Amino acid sequence: MTQPFASLSAFRDLLAAPEGVDQMALAAAADHNGQLTKPPGSLGRLEDLALWYRGWRGGDRAEIAAPQVIVFAGNHGVAARGVSAFPAEVTGQMVLNFQAGGAAVNQLARVAGASMTVVPLDLDRPTADFTAGPAMTEAELVAALAAGWNAVDVTADLLVVGEMGIANTTSAAALALALLGGDAAEWTGRGTGVGDAALAVKTEVVRAGVALHGGQGDGLETLRRLGGRELAGMAGAMARARSLRIPVILDGFICCAAALCLEHTRAGALDHAVAGHLSAEGGHARLLQALNKVPLLQLGLRLGEASGGTLAISVLKAALACHGGMATFAQAGVSDG
Amino acid sequence: MTQPFASLSAFRDLLAAPEGVDQMALAAAADHNGQLTKPPGSLGRLEDLALWYRGWRGGDRAEIAAPQVIVFAGNHGVAARGVSAFPAEVTGQMVLNFQAGGAAVNQLARVAGASMTVVPLDLDRPTADFTAGPAMTEAELVAALAAGWNAVDVTADLLVVGEMGIANTTSAAALALALLGGDAAEWTGRGTGVGDAALAVKTEVVRAGVALHGGQGDGLETLRRLGGRELAGMAGAMARARSLRIPVILDGFICCAAALCLEHTRAGALDHAVAGHLSAEGGHARLLQALNKVPLLQLGLRLGEASGGTLAISVLKAALACHGGMATFAQAGVSDG
Repeated sequence: MTQPFASLSAFRDLLAAPEGVDQMALAAAADHNGQLTKPPGSLGRLEDLALWYRGWRGGDRAEIAAPQVIVFAGNHGVAARGVSAFPAEVTGQMVLNFQAGGAAVNQLARVAGASMTVVPLDLDRPTADFTAGPAMTEAELVAALAAGWNAVDVTADLLVVGEMGIANTTSAAALALALLGGDAAEWTGRGTGVGDAALAVKTEVVRAGVALHGGQGDGLETLRRLGGRELAGMAGAMARARSLRIPVILDGFICCAAALCLEHTRAGALDHAVAGHLSAEGGHARLLQALNKVPLLQLGLRLGEASGGTLAISVLKAALACHGGMATFAQAGVSDG
Repeated sequence: MTQPFASLSAFRDLLAAPEGVDQMALAAAADHNGQLTKPPGSLGRLEDLALWYRGWRGGDRAEIAAPQVIVFAGNHGVAARGVSAFPAEVTGQMVLNFQAGGAAVNQLARVAGASMTVVPLDLDRPTADFTAGPAMTEAELVAALAAGWNAVDVTADLLVVGEMGIANTTSAAALALALLGGDAAEWTGRGTGVGDAALAVKTEVVRAGVALHGGQGDGLETLRRLGGRELAGMAGAMARARSLRIPVILDGFICCAAALCLEHTRAGALDHAVAGHLSAEGGHARLLQALNKVPLLQLGLRLGEASGGTLAISVLKAALACHGGMATFAQAGVSDG
């Protein structure tokens, strides 16, 4: 495994790289879209998605044939505080389930025709309890970002990142509170399904963590103090995808908290991403608003593990299939109004 | 082609047949769902969809391997009144486009792994202008219902029906106004994209048609007076699907107007159907409320031709793939909280 960056400041430099929309590809896509056999705009968001994809993918690349789903897993010191309905060993058990093909995301990836990569990150070394100190050292953060960066298949043409990590909605809520403000209770939800007593504990853990570390302003320093390895892995993968012109579909609350850390480090760092779905986890709607993203699906999922983003792959595939496969008015001999 | 029913009253008798949810299949599905490796309820609507599908499909049938999309096409006498942005000959031109594989729905069906059937219905004989008299005779209605009934592939395991027919949002708006009341302007939208002047004409045509024929109460008689052949075809196919325990995904405004005619003939006639999407066509949201259906997708489509329902096939496939393919807690050795 190559070391893509030796320090946090080297990663910051990569985030500042000037990749952007390929304006020629975007213009060609818009022109083509206008000739297809349908009333203008009648495919709604599918038309926007096709143009967005073609602009970010660049050149004449207009097909989704090799989507990749990456699930990062990590363990959290705050799990010991009783913030989850499940014990911490479930993280490792679910990694085995992902590897054996038995989890929800395995089925969803199969239906979507996507490859799946599972990246467990030092599961035997949970991050530090962030109510007592920073969750990670700078070296630990850099290693997790690099693991994410390296996990992206350079031949993929679409990327979904997701996570597994008992207690990581607690970490995500703390990141959102630190970077966006508000009250801990607004950001803290039931995660895997905690009861009222555990929810109160969880909310207090979120509040205490942010009180200790403060609203940092800087996304990566906040990620180091309140985040986790799987969140950093997702952030590294999303940054790598941008450098490779691979469009990204965001998953739920935790994925979007990782995305927020990138966006607060470098504005526009998530322009190559669309929101796959609106999670039932309470804070997700506000997090999507902060990222200025409108979700493609709203089906009440709250599972994480890239499930919602993977479900949305079919929508993007459909958008590009229409864009690339439909006849034009001229080809089909259809009167265009 | 066999004649499945010789009269409208014989079709009514078929609608009254007692097919319903297979309660044993539903109970088995619910039990299985509770054992899968995820927090309870965390797959949201995917879990509801899997249970609904298994209950309606019956037995131990829990896989979607052969979805069918049927597009019915018909021409309308009211097209001559200038209610569409496109000339009436586009109906036939688009049928050729469907048959050649160049339309949006062809691409969407391919992505969803669905077969596609195109059923043009007497395109050279438009229905009568409903502002002057009934759109169809009883014999014409029965023939169109029968064409729909016969178009269903008995080996399909999921059905989407849709339509093509210049001026058929006018017909659908008239059906909705006649059966649900309100004002013509609330039900009349821009369809393929008419301007303000044509919208005013269209609204007046809807109002005049319903004023002439009245709110009939009876769904099939209203369909005869204000509907069209492709709407009757969809109604016949949806009824046949129920008799075969083939679950149905509804498409947009026009499909739902056809569904409403069935529901107003026999309450519960659409219990085997889910709403595929919310169309951008104005009246669709109210029509879905009247049918008591919550759409799976809201992506701003307003194309018809089964496009929204076909896009939703992947969601249903994903639901059944999770239900059928996930490991249980016991199989995977995962602690269940």
